[in-house]
Amino acid sequence: MEHEGILVVISGFAGAGKGTIVKGLIEGYDNYALSVSMTTRQPRPGEKNGEAYFFVSREEFEKTIEEGGLIEHARYVDNYYGTPKAYVEEKLKAGRDVILEIELQGALQVRKLYPEALLLFVTPPSAEILKKRLTDRGTETPEVIKKRMNRAAEEAEMMDKYDYIIVNDKIEESIAHTHAVIQAAHSVPFRMKKLTESLQKDLLEMSKQ
Amino acid sequence: MEHEGILVVISGFAGAGKGTIVKGLIEGYDNYALSVSMTTRQPRPGEKNGEAYFFVSREEFEKTIEEGGLIEHARYVDNYYGTPKAYVEEKLKAGRDVILEIELQGALQVRKLYPEALLLFVTPPSAEILKKRLTDRGTETPEVIKKRMNRAAEEAEMMDKYDYIIVNDKIEESIAHTHAVIQAAHSVPFRMKKLTESLQKDLLEMSKQ
Repeated sequence: MEHEGILVVISGFAGAGKGTIVKGLIEGYDNYALSVSMTTRQPRPGEKNGEAYFFVSREEFEKTIEEGGLIEHARYVDNYYGTPKAYVEEKLKAGRDVILEIELQGALQVRKLYPEALLLFVTPPSAEILKKRLTDRGTETPEVIKKRMNRAAEEAEMMDKYDYIIVNDKIEESIAHTHAVIQAAHSVPFRMKKLTESLQKDLLEMSKQ
Repeated sequence: MEHEGILVVISGFAGAGKGTIVKGLIEGYDNYALSVSMTTRQPRPGEKNGEAYFFVSREEFEKTIEEGGLIEHARYVDNYYGTPKAYVEEKLKAGRDVILEIELQGALQVRKLYPEALLLFVTPPSAEILKKRLTDRGTETPEVIKKRMNRAAEEAEMMDKYDYIIVNDKIEESIAHTHAVIQAAHSVPFRMKKLTESLQKDLLEMSKQ
């Protein structure tokens, strides 16, 4: 599959600030498109269909899986979550870099289907700071924080499966750095084939004149 | 070999503007150090030893080769040119990104000795523009231009040996993009081992508490 745009997967520890980075990219630059997930969970008050999620029934979701209409999907508790393929493909072909904010397991599924996808992992500068951020939110019980830290310990073992690790210390710098990383990825040779092939062809012709 | 800084090799077609990009990086940002080449050619009027080059005798140069004191070297016409290792190593250890502006053959030598080096290839947007830039200089004879275009045709076949291809269209944008590419390279997992290992260790300990 050759695309003009890059499929950018952003994962990271809960509390690492990946949502804020994604928001910063979408709002700060015009080359990005944000993938909208499909889910079977109930919309919360104020959530509109097609904004944060496409809300569908379990039957519809399972039908979409069977038809190969999802890039990745996962089940949490009793609900499905997944990334619809059509939207992503359409935006990539139009030259947009498409951002998926998904968990580690989904990221590895994406890698299989799109080997050229760019996988970014967002982390705070240290485990201490991660814990502090989760605690400072003040919305989570100690039990939930403990669960998240345990999950982070598991996820940390897989960090180096990602292409880049984004250390989120100061948020504005992290957004700019993430943008730089994605822009840099456009310049690797396998994404520059059109240019290199025409240069090779034209230079060869000129050298024969 | 583990370094804090990145060894950045910048090559590209004659006339692609790599010298201007290197100058822009050195002058515009403070994390770079420019490697100074060693040569046996005579200094031109106004050239000071240790600025653009270290000027040495053929005996000294050959002794340096034998002692393994050069990262790469090449011979053009009757003169040697090479990159002294000591300066590069010292700056890398101090955390500076060290820039070498060298030709393709030297770049491939560097890759062998430093597999983690970052190899950048600078090109104009098209063969036509390359020819125009060489012609517009007004300093080269048609014969020299022809030679450079032929050499460019050869070099173009090797462009995809490089890690990144920098298209130099507008110089200010190219300098900023090259900087972004180098900054992005600091975030690949193999250059983040210190951080990932301490995160893994600390998170594991915390999850046992």
